[in-house]
Amino acid sequence: MTVQVVGLDGDDTLWRNEEYFAASQQAFRDLLAPYVNGDIDVDQRLEAKERTNLELFGYGVKGFTLSLIETAIEVTAGRVSGAVVQSLLDLGKGMLQQPVELIEGVAETIPLLAERYRLIVVTKGDLWNQEQKLARSSLADLMAGVEIVAEKDLATYRRILRRYDVDPATFVMVGNSVRSDILPVLEAGGRAVHIPHELTWALEVAEHDGSVPTLRSIKELPAWLEENG
Amino acid sequence: MTVQVVGLDGDDTLWRNEEYFAASQQAFRDLLAPYVNGDIDVDQRLEAKERTNLELFGYGVKGFTLSLIETAIEVTAGRVSGAVVQSLLDLGKGMLQQPVELIEGVAETIPLLAERYRLIVVTKGDLWNQEQKLARSSLADLMAGVEIVAEKDLATYRRILRRYDVDPATFVMVGNSVRSDILPVLEAGGRAVHIPHELTWALEVAEHDGSVPTLRSIKELPAWLEENG
Repeated sequence: MTVQVVGLDGDDTLWRNEEYFAASQQAFRDLLAPYVNGDIDVDQRLEAKERTNLELFGYGVKGFTLSLIETAIEVTAGRVSGAVVQSLLDLGKGMLQQPVELIEGVAETIPLLAERYRLIVVTKGDLWNQEQKLARSSLADLMAGVEIVAEKDLATYRRILRRYDVDPATFVMVGNSVRSDILPVLEAGGRAVHIPHELTWALEVAEHDGSVPTLRSIKELPAWLEENG
Repeated sequence: MTVQVVGLDGDDTLWRNEEYFAASQQAFRDLLAPYVNGDIDVDQRLEAKERTNLELFGYGVKGFTLSLIETAIEVTAGRVSGAVVQSLLDLGKGMLQQPVELIEGVAETIPLLAERYRLIVVTKGDLWNQEQKLARSSLADLMAGVEIVAEKDLATYRRILRRYDVDPATFVMVGNSVRSDILPVLEAGGRAVHIPHELTWALEVAEHDGSVPTLRSIKELPAWLEENG
């Protein structure tokens, strides 16, 4: 069936995101370097902490910042200074204040898509922060809907398709995360287009079987939809 | 017009909430007592910090926990120990793990209301946490919809009324916060019923002009709707 509705992931599909996390993680390593010897893999400890805390915190910058602080306390055996903890808080605040930078091609492609299809942003993370990002992106007016969700799984996509009264066969989801943007959508009976981003958070890593259409840039999406949609 | 849709606030209307914040704040004072002399009003400093951070963090436990940590660093001039910061993290985690305790009367009243009206929960706070609370509340199946929102203002209520295709004249919102549950709903053309809770967060305090119907318990709501709805 013909595509009528295009779902769009936010972070690292419409706007840059993971690189700010990576930059904060680099600053985190630098701040802790005076405290830890080479035996401690700070990155690995942070990833383990994020994994453990995910069940309580969910996704987003606030939970990430809390995990930075908790990891810092652990790897320094409590010796981390108040000044360093404040620096970690400031890393988080800086991420929340970060101006939205659209991914290359988004600004010119989304208006083209909006002429032909109903567009729905489907994004996860902190509700407050994602709403601010969307408002700052100047894309909001082109969207038929915005769904900020706690998790992008089968139940979530089914709920969204019902809410907008969309036949899954007419739905294509576009995003950079195989785990969140591709696999659950295929399971829901929709189609998906993968636009990989150079950085992927460890907790998002997943693979598809190679049969999922993959584009190098969102700029290729209108032609792909024209041909395959 | 006859009431067809009842909006229900979550925190401190359906389930207990503010008392956990108050208990955490008491623990916070106790943890900081050895560091600060009587000249520093820790509560006032925390409230000021929450107010400043609100624009970045929005509502919910994660932002509260970050504000606890930042206030602790400030009032101790950076001398707060890693162990105390970990205790503050643990306060936040404890709040997120808190079993849901329904307010008295909710468990028996909501099923009665669900027989007569479409019920929509409208709640703010951390998306992840609010979804978990709703799931743990065993009320989810009785709801026609759940809206977890970043802010409960006029634009939000208008969006929800549109989304569910509700004539404002047939809508009643029920909640404990005059600022979030009452005033913006009246502005949107709906009605509102105030069920005060014994504790109200400083940033939520507002007053109405006395003309808003006020009930002592949600148990009085079915009869009130019968008579006035």
